[in-house]
Amino acid sequence: MLSVSDYQKAKSKTMSYFEQANIILTSEEQEKIEIADFGLNDLERQGLELVTYINNEHYCAKELVLFPLQTCPEHKHPPIGDSLGKTETFRCRYGKVYLYVEGEPSIDFKASIPSSSKDYYTVSHEIELHPGDQFTIPPNTLHWFQAGEEGAIVSEFSTTSRDEYDIFTDPHITRVPKKT
Amino acid sequence: MLSVSDYQKAKSKTMSYFEQANIILTSEEQEKIEIADFGLNDLERQGLELVTYINNEHYCAKELVLFPLQTCPEHKHPPIGDSLGKTETFRCRYGKVYLYVEGEPSIDFKASIPSSSKDYYTVSHEIELHPGDQFTIPPNTLHWFQAGEEGAIVSEFSTTSRDEYDIFTDPHITRVPKKT
Ligand SMILES: [Zn+2]
Ligand SMILES: [Zn+2]
Repeated sequence: MLSVSDYQKAKSKTMSYFEQANIILTSEEQEKIEIADFGLNDLERQGLELVTYINNEHYCAKELVLFPLQTCPEHKHPPIGDSLGKTETFRCRYGKVYLYVEGEPSIDFKASIPSSSKDYYTVSHEIELHPGDQFTIPPNTLHWFQAGEEGAIVSEFSTTSRDEYDIFTDPHITRVPKKT
Repeated sequence: MLSVSDYQKAKSKTMSYFEQANIILTSEEQEKIEIADFGLNDLERQGLELVTYINNEHYCAKELVLFPLQTCPEHKHPPIGDSLGKTETFRCRYGKVYLYVEGEPSIDFKASIPSSSKDYYTVSHEIELHPGDQFTIPPNTLHWFQAGEEGAIVSEFSTTSRDEYDIFTDPHITRVPKKT
């Protein structure tokens, strides 16, 4: 688990990305910035920083930050009850994002898979997102993504977010940290 | 209807707002910027500029621009079939927005109602949005909004958008311009 000081460090680094991109958060939102290390204790390599603007029974909007070369590990959003699973639109706002989804594997793709977890990255159809570019990931579709060397900011528009149902390829991952 | 040259002028003014706020659009999106004058031929006073990032069967995300003191006229999003009607989250990104919804009327509210249409503004419960502030408007609820003196940019996160069903208080308004 992240120490309090690692959390604070990651939070202020996240805020510096938002400031650079002119994205303004209320002080309440700044307090609620989420630092996800997925229980892997290797935040700089595999992790994600985010703030949730709204998450209701119909739609969800978040702002995601990736540090330079930071990777959000491979996962999918499965069907839950009557719903097909979460659909996600990723819109790059700043930096560069390499997104990988199910489909024809891309030869010589640009991201580098975190070596400690290489068995848990199985899809490699590449979509490169620059600022203004977006891509919509269908429900129940494996995906992972990595920032370029400047880091990245991604706006996520989606159906309702229920992180606790996400299925990660890496069995060591716990998405929702146990509360102490 | 807007002339081609008025449309081009409004579009480049809209782009200058996005540039000022570091919001990047693809050239395709720039081409598709929508200038809504609601058939009132008074764009600077009553109108709205927007770009739609995504609008699928579940959710919608748009970026709205308001010129200084420009007003989006009073309307609501009614139930359609099995759905309750559009729910809208407005997040102020730049400038200042005065939003009015059903509820306790606000005394001495800050916006000034366009005098030519004053009978068609009936709700006056005021919500003032500064950058980083947001408010969610329930379905089937009358609302209108006006920018402050600098203009404004608002991110809209919502359920599916079906503009053709919107109900405007002013009977002179046609939301979806007839195609020629
Ligand atoms: Zn996902
Ligand atoms: Zn509306």
